[in-house]
Amino acid sequence: MTYRAPVGDIAFTLKHAAGLKRALDEGLYGDLTEDLVDAVLEEAGKFATDVIAPLNRVGDVHGTPLANGAVKMPPGWKEAYAAWTAAGWNGLAASTDWGGQGLPHLINAACLEMWHAAAMAFGLGPLLTMGAAEALAAHGAEALKQTYLPKLVSGEWMGTMQLTEPQAGSDLSALRTKAERRQDGTYRITGQKIFITYGEHDLTDNIVHFVLARLPDAPPGTRGISLFLVPKYLVNPDGTLGAKNDVRCHSVEHKLGIHGSPTCTMVYGDDGGATGFLVGEENRGLACMFTMMNNARLGVGLEGVAVAERATQQALAYARERRQGRAPDAADPGMSPILAHPDVQRMLLLMRASTRAARAICYMTAAAIDRSHRERDEAARERAQERASLLTPVAKAFSTDIGIEVASLGVQVHGGMGFIEETGAAQHYRDARIATIYEGTNGIQAIDLVTRKLPLSGGAAVRAFLQELRGTVAAVREINDPALGATAERLSEAIESLERATDWLLAELASRPQAALAGATPYLRLFAVAAGGCALAEEALAATRTDSGHDAAGRLGIARFFAEHMAVASGGLEREVIGGADAILAAQAALAG
Amino acid sequence: MTYRAPVGDIAFTLKHAAGLKRALDEGLYGDLTEDLVDAVLEEAGKFATDVIAPLNRVGDVHGTPLANGAVKMPPGWKEAYAAWTAAGWNGLAASTDWGGQGLPHLINAACLEMWHAAAMAFGLGPLLTMGAAEALAAHGAEALKQTYLPKLVSGEWMGTMQLTEPQAGSDLSALRTKAERRQDGTYRITGQKIFITYGEHDLTDNIVHFVLARLPDAPPGTRGISLFLVPKYLVNPDGTLGAKNDVRCHSVEHKLGIHGSPTCTMVYGDDGGATGFLVGEENRGLACMFTMMNNARLGVGLEGVAVAERATQQALAYARERRQGRAPDAADPGMSPILAHPDVQRMLLLMRASTRAARAICYMTAAAIDRSHRERDEAARERAQERASLLTPVAKAFSTDIGIEVASLGVQVHGGMGFIEETGAAQHYRDARIATIYEGTNGIQAIDLVTRKLPLSGGAAVRAFLQELRGTVAAVREINDPALGATAERLSEAIESLERATDWLLAELASRPQAALAGATPYLRLFAVAAGGCALAEEALAATRTDSGHDAAGRLGIARFFAEHMAVASGGLEREVIGGADAILAAQAALAG
Repeated sequence: MTYRAPVGDIAFTLKHAAGLKRALDEGLYGDLTEDLVDAVLEEAGKFATDVIAPLNRVGDVHGTPLANGAVKMPPGWKEAYAAWTAAGWNGLAASTDWGGQGLPHLINAACLEMWHAAAMAFGLGPLLTMGAAEALAAHGAEALKQTYLPKLVSGEWMGTMQLTEPQAGSDLSALRTKAERRQDGTYRITGQKIFITYGEHDLTDNIVHFVLARLPDAPPGTRGISLFLVPKYLVNPDGTLGAKNDVRCHSVEHKLGIHGSPTCTMVYGDDGGATGFLVGEENRGLACMFTMMNNARLGVGLEGVAVAERATQQALAYARERRQGRAPDAADPGMSPILAHPDVQRMLLLMRASTRAARAICYMTAAAIDRSHRERDEAARERAQERASLLTPVAKAFSTDIGIEVASLGVQVHGGMGFIEETGAAQHYRDARIATIYEGTNGIQAIDLVTRKLPLSGGAAVRAFLQELRGTVAAVREINDPALGATAERLSEAIESLERATDWLLAELASRPQAALAGATPYLRLFAVAAGGCALAEEALAATRTDSGHDAAGRLGIARFFAEHMAVASGGLEREVIGGADAILAAQAALAG
Repeated sequence: MTYRAPVGDIAFTLKHAAGLKRALDEGLYGDLTEDLVDAVLEEAGKFATDVIAPLNRVGDVHGTPLANGAVKMPPGWKEAYAAWTAAGWNGLAASTDWGGQGLPHLINAACLEMWHAAAMAFGLGPLLTMGAAEALAAHGAEALKQTYLPKLVSGEWMGTMQLTEPQAGSDLSALRTKAERRQDGTYRITGQKIFITYGEHDLTDNIVHFVLARLPDAPPGTRGISLFLVPKYLVNPDGTLGAKNDVRCHSVEHKLGIHGSPTCTMVYGDDGGATGFLVGEENRGLACMFTMMNNARLGVGLEGVAVAERATQQALAYARERRQGRAPDAADPGMSPILAHPDVQRMLLLMRASTRAARAICYMTAAAIDRSHRERDEAARERAQERASLLTPVAKAFSTDIGIEVASLGVQVHGGMGFIEETGAAQHYRDARIATIYEGTNGIQAIDLVTRKLPLSGGAAVRAFLQELRGTVAAVREINDPALGATAERLSEAIESLERATDWLLAELASRPQAALAGATPYLRLFAVAAGGCALAEEALAATRTDSGHDAAGRLGIARFFAEHMAVASGGLEREVIGGADAILAAQAALAG
């Protein structure tokens, strides 16, 4: 069983949970129509299903060996990448000024999910290339853009994002890579970067590295970091490739998963230093890099959704085929498909409900990003920007957390077969494990949410969101459909817990930052559980409203399941946030010695 | 960082949570003394730390390749195994009649934890050998015991446990391996078994397979299964090895983890059939196998504790060394050890508290097994037997669930380094994944708990246990130590939730078995959270009572952390059990199509 892009599911969530229909009605997306959206999703789904998905295990088995400084990508990957860029997928959301298609981030988010589900290791390179192109478009000098941007938008060249050094992971203030000014306006880059995704490969003729480095006279800490574009091959004035730059891949990591994605240690300056071009202003590199990182964070959230979707499809297919035991109410006297056993149903519903909730949160985030660019008045753009800022850490952390949980359940549903590598379920479990770590660990996301996002506009951003969630509960109460069981009560309790936890954190932030930090992770989960539960309820409401062709019974069932099985965690999570900080701070002795 | 056996921790839990001190005082363990227990644990800890632990990664990297029907174990494993058996560890809990040491299962459980923590793939072979020896001792004919038992007890030969066939995993009724009676009283075995742990290897000269098979005239289903002893080499009357039996290893699986443990497909009857010896009565094989399986289930639970302990040690060591960011209250102006960050503390406390709670539950189970053999009056033995039966599925499932959760947190604490295989954290995450599956999936454990264990003595067994838990809460209330925070309230709430869920399940079992089955997994977790929380509270109380040398502050901190961060899940779990079954049964549409 391989992956089949759930185009109908994706379109439904786009339209009804992420507000695509409303945005189209408002004219926010210009002359884009629902038909065109459906057509794009259909094509993306075909490409993901037919071309990329079969490469997933190939990448896992072959990996990306390094020999003589060159990384050999797995069989078939180069051809697939070429076909993918030729079809224009890399520039889907990029500006038409640079050869992109200018489509909404929301549509690109849906496509990113499909690329990653088809093969997470494949999707990763384009994700970073898109981020690099966006940073260059936002901050680069015109000449630099003319030279590099069209190729980064088309995907003819790929981009990398180079932050990490051995002593500087989550804390970039410790960064040591050096940049020295040259007479000609370029910079001499020397140093070492680690954990560089797609740092070296043979998919494209050139690779455009975006490297954080420090000038000799830079202030210490993160305010002394600059961003440089360092191409693998320098580019001649006529656009052809020139000399090899002084950068090389020193080694490729042997990782737990995403074996098809080369993770490289990069060395700058074997031969006197690489030539780098400043992007943005000196010492303002981190701000430029954040342009890339915010989009990449949403992209990594989508990886969580993607791997969860693929794991769910595989487990469901197995549970339909595999027969063991006789279910209590089975008509057939023989063995039942394991899908007929309530505990297996529970696992599969957890998988499906988690995946759909995470998908809705990610798409809502993408929709807010679009609104932050496209709303007509500035106040609305500002509000949308705050909404996107608020939701990004939730989208990243919750989706990747459930990515692991769902992939693990997928192994469990397979029983012993799940532990055998040939089955494929184990690969999802291995691949999913990185997404909670890179682009800012989920702990960092939670801290970002609590310390930077909750205080936005004095708490107004989060309160406006809570108000919308309450609106969903009111609508659920209003429709009063018995198929929704206790959904309204459970979601209402979750929102109340979230509200109390929010108030508590906002108060503690000022007086006891340690306590707020201690509660950040359970708070993010609580936020996601409330938001995800309400998004699924919105989908259920929409499914009952819209005409034929929508799986109303399934949507109602998933919304109810999420409320009664996942949102019920909210009371415990609230206590972890509010009372739990003291327990952590008091338990230091248990970690000593 | 490798593993260092936490001998002091283990001894403390044995004595104060599992009741070893009380059992010694009661004279239940004959002339065994606390000093002797400490000495045994000390020696086991040294062996695990010094000899086995360094083999863990060796086993992971080398695996167990098959060539010409022979499996080559990883470098150093044969020597370590030989030294281990020579020291008498294999027969620790076996009867002195057969060369064992006759020590309590409780002590053996502690040692099993250490062997598995040192290398899970190493501990697995002995675990199965011990189970095989126990089944043979309980059910075998005298002559068979004379030939095989001393060598299985010493470990000179190893044993295997062969249940699974491609069509018969969780459901053994579908088993097809054939056994035909021969004139000489032996049986001709033909068929195929899969997923056979240590089915072939070069650690011992002979391997004694315990194989479930079906006689030609056997009734269908599980009441037609018999157990056979099938040696790799037949044994001559003088005890020397004779002809090779007609059994071979056909292939070795390529697995996600425990690469040092060969998982074999075994083929019987290439050459007319293997010679098997009946163990117990014809068609009563499953009952005999259950003797092995109950102990093996506890043993697998201990694997969960073991991998969690090792992952915690490794993550804690890393968190002390690795510096990133500055903690809010840090004295040092530079980067703090990540252990100083509250969210990292939270992860490490989750790891430590989960591990200790699971350890306590496993040891309590082992203590109950001992009492079921050693109590003086039959009623007490019977009660202890019921306690062991009640706790075994909880020990197996909860410990292995937290094994995965803790190993996953261990990767997370390492950040990007955790995803690199050389670091070692990823191996724990891979190894831990099997333990929720084999020896009965955790779903099967939960169903066993709900459908077979709750009704024991009309519910009296579970109610007696709940009564003990309430006693712990009363003791916490009595001591009224502010260091315990809200421990009494949270544990009390957890017990109340458990009680309501228990009543509900006992009622539903009769009328709506589907609903009871749907709630089994969250019920098991709820049970474990209440039991584990109370066990940690008992440890905290004991630490404050006993004199110097005990980490009272740490034990109080862990008990409180567990109560305020893990036991708080109980309300949500109760709702998943009681209300949640309907949500599962109503959501079928979401899994259709």
